[in-house]
Amino acid sequence: MTLNPLVTQTLTTAQIAIEIAATAAFALSGILEAVRKKLDVVGMTVVAFLAAFGGGTLRDVLLDRRPFFWVEHSWYVWAVLGLCVATGAWLRGHHLALTERAMQWPDALGLGLFAASGTQIALAAHMPPLIAVLMGVMTAVFGGVLRDVVCNEIPSAFHGHQPYAVCAFAGGWVVVACYFLALDSGIALALGASAASGLRLLAMWRDWRLPDLRIHR
Amino acid sequence: MTLNPLVTQTLTTAQIAIEIAATAAFALSGILEAVRKKLDVVGMTVVAFLAAFGGGTLRDVLLDRRPFFWVEHSWYVWAVLGLCVATGAWLRGHHLALTERAMQWPDALGLGLFAASGTQIALAAHMPPLIAVLMGVMTAVFGGVLRDVVCNEIPSAFHGHQPYAVCAFAGGWVVVACYFLALDSGIALALGASAASGLRLLAMWRDWRLPDLRIHR
Amino acid sequence: MTLNPLVTQTLTTAQIAIEIAATAAFALSGILEAVRKKLDVVGMTVVAFLAAFGGGTLRDVLLDRRPFFWVEHSWYVWAVLGLCVATGAWLRGHHLALTERAMQWPDALGLGLFAASGTQIALAAHMPPLIAVLMGVMTAVFGGVLRDVVCNEIPSAFHGHQPYAVCAFAGGWVVVACYFLALDSGIALALGASAASGLRLLAMWRDWRLPDLRIHR
Repeated sequence: MTLNPLVTQTLTTAQIAIEIAATAAFALSGILEAVRKKLDVVGMTVVAFLAAFGGGTLRDVLLDRRPFFWVEHSWYVWAVLGLCVATGAWLRGHHLALTERAMQWPDALGLGLFAASGTQIALAAHMPPLIAVLMGVMTAVFGGVLRDVVCNEIPSAFHGHQPYAVCAFAGGWVVVACYFLALDSGIALALGASAASGLRLLAMWRDWRLPDLRIHR
Repeated sequence: MTLNPLVTQTLTTAQIAIEIAATAAFALSGILEAVRKKLDVVGMTVVAFLAAFGGGTLRDVLLDRRPFFWVEHSWYVWAVLGLCVATGAWLRGHHLALTERAMQWPDALGLGLFAASGTQIALAAHMPPLIAVLMGVMTAVFGGVLRDVVCNEIPSAFHGHQPYAVCAFAGGWVVVACYFLALDSGIALALGASAASGLRLLAMWRDWRLPDLRIHR
Repeated sequence: MTLNPLVTQTLTTAQIAIEIAATAAFALSGILEAVRKKLDVVGMTVVAFLAAFGGGTLRDVLLDRRPFFWVEHSWYVWAVLGLCVATGAWLRGHHLALTERAMQWPDALGLGLFAASGTQIALAAHMPPLIAVLMGVMTAVFGGVLRDVVCNEIPSAFHGHQPYAVCAFAGGWVVVACYFLALDSGIALALGASAASGLRLLAMWRDWRLPDLRIHR
């Protein structure tokens, strides 16, 4: 199935816009955690990098893909450096709590986009479906995991009891389904990302919880 | 030296059986730690994966081997997923402490098997003997290390004061010795794994302790 | 620009001497942290390895370079093993605090040398300048980061509020500048390493602090 070039164009532009917003949201989540943990400017910058690029980098190491996207597009690194400086200045006059709530939106978009694109990249590298979906989840979630591990916290994705990685997982399977239906990859990306982001936004809105373990000790 | 095909067959079947038991034991150790740390189901699954596949994956990244064994045999991933679901259900009616003690046996078998097979894989990749042995130790031990780091604990392998990695180290040298004696690789695996597992079981039985550092401050 | 062979020879000898001193200093920093955290001998050895080889290994994984330098020169691994044994014995009769202060000097030299050589290796692998400098910083700093993460501490490089990684960053740019000026690589290494180490020593001597974040909450 081929798409109208205009539609493809719009999808691509939307993807780039979301990617930039999502990378910024992920980097910001690192900056905020660094501030909460009283790290210095170096720590803030490193944690921002880990949060923004950690997931995609781990995926690329596991798939043995080079160059990394932040090597190929090294202006991304400059942008995160700039964001660190700007946020440092901006945060002096603003409340952290507000910033955190405002960030949940681009974060949910990033979750979807990175899960869907990570799954596609893994499928293109001939991974079996389950592995490809897990690679997508990793792309979306492991930046935050590395951020939390370096800040000496149990990753929030692992004990938040809210659907987060699960939404990425669902979105990944949508991409796999599109792949087997031989749909255009732009459509697959859009559907998979929308599914994951939509689920995440729904989960936030309805305050869904993961099933409890309730263990007998 | 070539082996009677029947012996080879038996060794291979035994190896696969131990490998499955050991992977399950390692995954279970992750599940139990996740329960203790009150992680949610996502965290439990990730920590189970890290404990089961972390050591072998790190070895393969360091040796630049692809595909990973859990990519080539992706039913392993399904099995760990299934184990997480089954354990979640099972643990509601059983005591954790019991499970932990029951797990030490397959864990000791896994330690030996993974140390010996990791050393063999590294030797096959032309690593020098010491490095090959360390790769074997890593294969056997780093899953547990990653599990503990993600759960915000100092790895138990590093401050348990009980011989654990040391047993894997000894077993690795047995494999290297077999290699220089040009023994059949099935025999080398069996001897190395038995040495490591045997030492570990002995250490548990006799309650051996590592030499103390007793530092003057 | 070609150098007098005698000068090259002297530079190379100096480089090897500094490399050995720096690797020992990094390994020692791991040993001391392990002692402070009451790890056992296995933990001490692993943390010493992580501190000594972690940064260079991460750089090589990211650049997809093999074999690792500690595989090619596996006597380095033996040396660190020996250092662990020797330090274990030596520390029984000496104060930790003294050792720590004495170590700051070779650590500062190592910071400079590893930052400069890491940057050169990344430039040789055709990384863009900013990425190469960051690879140099990673080479110099990530061993200590891994050491601290495994010991369940927020990395001191991230919340020490003293210039450390920043000195490595500056030294990396000196190497990049030399590269664009087409200077001899021995000279570039010497200048970059001196810049980073010199800044670090200055920062320690003058007790420089990183700018504070001073956030409005």
